Amino acid sequence: VDPDTLERFIKLGHVVDLLGTFVAAGTGAAAAIRKELDLVGIVVLAFLAGTAGGIIRDLLIGAVPPAAMSSLNYLFLALTAAAITMPGYRQLGQPKHTVLIVDAAGLGFFAVAGTEKALVHGIHPVLAPALGVLTAIGGGIVRDILVNEIPVVFRDRSLYATAALAGAVVVAVGAWLQLRPVYGAILGGTLAFALRLGAIWLGWRLEFPNYQK
Amino acid sequence: VDPDTLERFIKLGHVVDLLGTFVAAGTGAAAAIRKELDLVGIVVLAFLAGTAGGIIRDLLIGAVPPAAMSSLNYLFLALTAAAITMPGYRQLGQPKHTVLIVDAAGLGFFAVAGTEKALVHGIHPVLAPALGVLTAIGGGIVRDILVNEIPVVFRDRSLYATAALAGAVVVAVGAWLQLRPVYGAILGGTLAFALRLGAIWLGWRLEFPNYQK
Amino acid sequence: VDPDTLERFIKLGHVVDLLGTFVAAGTGAAAAIRKELDLVGIVVLAFLAGTAGGIIRDLLIGAVPPAAMSSLNYLFLALTAAAITMPGYRQLGQPKHTVLIVDAAGLGFFAVAGTEKALVHGIHPVLAPALGVLTAIGGGIVRDILVNEIPVVFRDRSLYATAALAGAVVVAVGAWLQLRPVYGAILGGTLAFALRLGAIWLGWRLEFPNYQK
Repeated sequence: VDPDTLERFIKLGHVVDLLGTFVAAGTGAAAAIRKELDLVGIVVLAFLAGTAGGIIRDLLIGAVPPAAMSSLNYLFLALTAAAITMPGYRQLGQPKHTVLIVDAAGLGFFAVAGTEKALVHGIHPVLAPALGVLTAIGGGIVRDILVNEIPVVFRDRSLYATAALAGAVVVAVGAWLQLRPVYGAILGGTLAFALRLGAIWLGWRLEFPNYQK
Repeated sequence: VDPDTLERFIKLGHVVDLLGTFVAAGTGAAAAIRKELDLVGIVVLAFLAGTAGGIIRDLLIGAVPPAAMSSLNYLFLALTAAAITMPGYRQLGQPKHTVLIVDAAGLGFFAVAGTEKALVHGIHPVLAPALGVLTAIGGGIVRDILVNEIPVVFRDRSLYATAALAGAVVVAVGAWLQLRPVYGAILGGTLAFALRLGAIWLGWRLEFPNYQK
Repeated sequence: VDPDTLERFIKLGHVVDLLGTFVAAGTGAAAAIRKELDLVGIVVLAFLAGTAGGIIRDLLIGAVPPAAMSSLNYLFLALTAAAITMPGYRQLGQPKHTVLIVDAAGLGFFAVAGTEKALVHGIHPVLAPALGVLTAIGGGIVRDILVNEIPVVFRDRSLYATAALAGAVVVAVGAWLQLRPVYGAILGGTLAFALRLGAIWLGWRLEFPNYQK
């Protein structure tokens, strides 16, 4: 791969990071509005839905202050997402395909970026993917707990955390094979994105017996 | 302002810190009793309602161990608040005005002290007020999640987090103008206190459209 | 006590650590199955029920990355516990006495090991036992919050956190008396274990007036 193409992929990564945070923040604002929270609740949930996964990851690997507290981008994205979601709430209805695709791209990006950051901070390659998955799903978990619901990522059998895990594992294997990080990130991110698109359009699910019954 | 007056304000700050923690711990003990928790639940909720905001702030800015783990004062205050709240629970009824005023003073103190501490630890002046607000409302959020309720600070439209934010922003602007920190703290703390008193006595609220309906 | 006996106690500690984590992870998997969570929920709850107490303790004392992220043992134990709990769920029914005894041993171990680690990291001897108790009960608290329930350790009046606290205090007093840590650990761990067995077999409870009524 020539350097220009790589450069373009890295820029793409930044765009996906911001878009993914923006969409996740929108889900936080929407959850808050659905529960009839006030403006404080809407803004806090937007911010945390967009950033809590990365914040918890950074606390766990000792990267303080967390990235979301070192740059104004995330606060700005959360406020913008809240400002757009509020008046648009009734029009929004079910998430549109555009939103789901951006969310899927964000899922892939957060999974690989979180895994890379964990590896850079010396986390064992077998455990680093767990931190990549945490980065991808942590915001949604915190959002759901704050509105007093069991996190949807633990209930919905759709490929979501599993898609993130597949992408994260590719990054860890790539690091173990001493590939350049950017290759692992592109491969892993694309895999997670593709699995998630399969879940959205083809209904791919992680089925397993119901042990409850 | 002469040094003696400043000195008195700083001492006042220490008193408000302890009184605010004490009242917040009492709300934790009361929530635990209302949910019929046992003695363990009452003590843990009293401690966390009084300290969790500052603890999370300290984790985020890398000030470990957190202040609440470095001094015995907070544990002592939590135990005392629990010991007073338990036998007094039925008599207490709705919070009395004295309690609300002390809580309002605590809100102002936590907001400005949290913002100052974030600034000292190098947090961006635009983000530092968010950590001040977290210091002021974090204990209540953790308390409500532990008794399985949506945090009241996200539902009640009364000025609370908003009052804290106003005070925190004054501190950050003061720092940006290179005022002496104690002036920003006095101004910001007084503003937050006054806004909260307005919410208690005059019913000031943060109204905005209900996007749910 | 001769060195060989001490050596055996230390090895026993490692075994109890792993067994305790394993049983706690099983309670996480069981809670997830009871709530009909999917495979992601089962694995995450198993891991966090086994490790969250120690993880939060390590964040609070600044020992990052936490022990559970530095060794593969805990992930392996969580996956194994989930794999055993899933097909066995219907057969398991009420926890058997074996499980309760292993859990009681784990409680004692986590309480004393958490207190020791806090002391080593310079936490005040009066506060270190709180971190020992957190180590012992934190996993169950996070498990219960994630399935949207008030933590059972705050509701059930059975000696559990209290047993852990008794053992943790012995360790702190031992350190204050400058005993060798291993003696305090053996004494404290045995006391917590015995109190918990008393709760299981003899129904020892921490009764106190119901202030709600």
